[in-house]
Amino acid sequence: MFTQTNPELMDDLKMRWRRLQVLIQTAGADALVVSSNTNLYYLCGRVFMGHAIIPASGDPLFCVRRPCGLKGERVRELRKMEQLPELLAEVGLPLPARVLIENDELSYNDGLRLSAVFPGAVMGNGSAVLRQCRMVKTPYEIRIMKMTGQRHVEVINRFASVYEPGMTDHAWALEMYHLMLKAGNLGQFRIAGSSMEAFMGTILAGDNGAAVSPYDFALGGAGLHPSLPVGQCGIKLTEGMAVLVDIAANFYGYLTDCSRVYSIGKLAQPAYDAHQVSIAIRNAIIAVAKPGVPAEDLYTLALEMATKAGLADCFMGAQQKAKFVGHGTGIVINELPILGARSKDILAEGMTIALEPKFVIPGTGAVGIEDTLLVTSRGLENLTPAPTEIISL
Amino acid sequence: MFTQTNPELMDDLKMRWRRLQVLIQTAGADALVVSSNTNLYYLCGRVFMGHAIIPASGDPLFCVRRPCGLKGERVRELRKMEQLPELLAEVGLPLPARVLIENDELSYNDGLRLSAVFPGAVMGNGSAVLRQCRMVKTPYEIRIMKMTGQRHVEVINRFASVYEPGMTDHAWALEMYHLMLKAGNLGQFRIAGSSMEAFMGTILAGDNGAAVSPYDFALGGAGLHPSLPVGQCGIKLTEGMAVLVDIAANFYGYLTDCSRVYSIGKLAQPAYDAHQVSIAIRNAIIAVAKPGVPAEDLYTLALEMATKAGLADCFMGAQQKAKFVGHGTGIVINELPILGARSKDILAEGMTIALEPKFVIPGTGAVGIEDTLLVTSRGLENLTPAPTEIISL
Repeated sequence: MFTQTNPELMDDLKMRWRRLQVLIQTAGADALVVSSNTNLYYLCGRVFMGHAIIPASGDPLFCVRRPCGLKGERVRELRKMEQLPELLAEVGLPLPARVLIENDELSYNDGLRLSAVFPGAVMGNGSAVLRQCRMVKTPYEIRIMKMTGQRHVEVINRFASVYEPGMTDHAWALEMYHLMLKAGNLGQFRIAGSSMEAFMGTILAGDNGAAVSPYDFALGGAGLHPSLPVGQCGIKLTEGMAVLVDIAANFYGYLTDCSRVYSIGKLAQPAYDAHQVSIAIRNAIIAVAKPGVPAEDLYTLALEMATKAGLADCFMGAQQKAKFVGHGTGIVINELPILGARSKDILAEGMTIALEPKFVIPGTGAVGIEDTLLVTSRGLENLTPAPTEIISL
Repeated sequence: MFTQTNPELMDDLKMRWRRLQVLIQTAGADALVVSSNTNLYYLCGRVFMGHAIIPASGDPLFCVRRPCGLKGERVRELRKMEQLPELLAEVGLPLPARVLIENDELSYNDGLRLSAVFPGAVMGNGSAVLRQCRMVKTPYEIRIMKMTGQRHVEVINRFASVYEPGMTDHAWALEMYHLMLKAGNLGQFRIAGSSMEAFMGTILAGDNGAAVSPYDFALGGAGLHPSLPVGQCGIKLTEGMAVLVDIAANFYGYLTDCSRVYSIGKLAQPAYDAHQVSIAIRNAIIAVAKPGVPAEDLYTLALEMATKAGLADCFMGAQQKAKFVGHGTGIVINELPILGARSKDILAEGMTIALEPKFVIPGTGAVGIEDTLLVTSRGLENLTPAPTEIISL
């Protein structure tokens, strides 16, 4: 196979490969070819340039284009993807007749090219299989995400200390980013989807919480520049504004997601009320969520509670509304499951879900909390247990 | 058409569309469909969710999935890409028989789906056409890049002020990132290629300058974590180390690229000598570069000078060598032209080139300079004129 200096990680990787093989077999495929950074990291514990091939059974093959520290009988050098069949033959693996590739991560060009590498083969979408597999975290991944959540909370608890009266939303954001990075956050904010982008996270103050963005986040924000229209917009923080701070944490290649709300002085009462509804939604979901529960039911519950509170119009956005109240998180910020309308996902032990019931109060701003929750056999465990009340600055 | 609040930008966008139309006609196509954030920003001056269709002649059509500020007769709402033909019909544009799409920016899934939107049409690679067009900057883009370069240099001139003895490469990097962001850098570091990633830029100290990375940058670096193996690695900066600082600047959606070298105390003499060779290569290239000169010739010149100085072995890397000495920069950090072996690009007025002759000196680290240079009718103009000598910390 290959050498990993960390035996705990090595065992965990083998578990990931086995889980994937079950899904590959279920899909009726002979092999899965992985080429993207996120999925190579998932399969090997490191990003490298090349491809991993997971056969439906037996040991995987790792084809590397540059030295990357992976060593072993199943690690082979290649120059270009057209050599994959000969490398398969070298290690005694048959040429697959039904091949899964990463339809969502490969570029159209690379997808066409990779399809041509296996002439006559039936090609299928391996991205779905990988997303399905990554939806349920392994013991090692859970440990990493718990550590990440703990460090995330430690930094969040210091956000208020770097606020100064008279700041803009962006000036405060920069001090929070700096705290995050100094605490060891790697900075990289991985998102699935070629059109998704953002820098570390967003700070939404006042009516910017209602601004529509082209990106599929729960809330948007106008952003600082039309080249990146998301998040803080450079406005001065003034009395009566709610400020929702949503900065992700990535200390070890896995993201936890947590949002908290701050107030500049005192807010209008509806903002406090809506914030309490958010906490109540979170608690109601925690009370019922456990393995076997459909993710859609949790969205329905959230929407019903928001509606009952008379807040349907400002739930998950204003002009533009997110159609979900939560999403998986891990190597990228937007994994499965989706807690949203028409979601087919069913809660299972080992899922890590960012639950974010949020409201946009006109004239005040966005309120609500977001936490990363782990699905266990006993229910949801909060990986980001920061204080939930609105913090007055 | 559509309304842009800035008339100067509006005129410039029209120039971009006209230039693209010439390339579309040359490619024998009827229309180009653009879907990626980078190219939508290029065509409209803002990122939005949707598609732009540039017909071979006549006015473009902008199909938006969310409100984005674009308004006008040629801006239409759509829910999904399958509606593109009906929107074309609505504005009286014929269904194209030969369609260019973004093969390099679209995911394989989206490429397949977009191809099916135009049944019977001959599909071609529009990414190449867009790269070709963006290679030569328009007057507005040049103005933006000049402003970016100027602000970039102002920040670089303050890098040494945030260094403190005993720091790690990463601790210093974080203070430089913070300076950059506080100066107005948007942070987003756009790179073409689905496997390319990095956070703001890299700081290579000592022998980490020779570390191989899976990413196609001029130099690599081991990085802080196997999930992002590039750049600084967390080592303490100690006497005799060269530190190459390569942090890009993005103040308005366009990147300038500039590297400078710092020394911890005094370096071994070969590092100073190699640094002078880098400056000499830069000056030699400036002396001969002008519109009409093949980009490959400039790489050959650089390689010859490095070889003549006895530095071929450590030119552009150690174990892993970049096969170029410069690259275009703009909305992404790795645009055309490529100043490398087998490059077919010819210098033209309006190109913006990051020229980066670099050497890796064993036991000391990476040295050399990088500047962003504008090709004018009179030769190269330096957009990032920071002092070039090694700065002792």
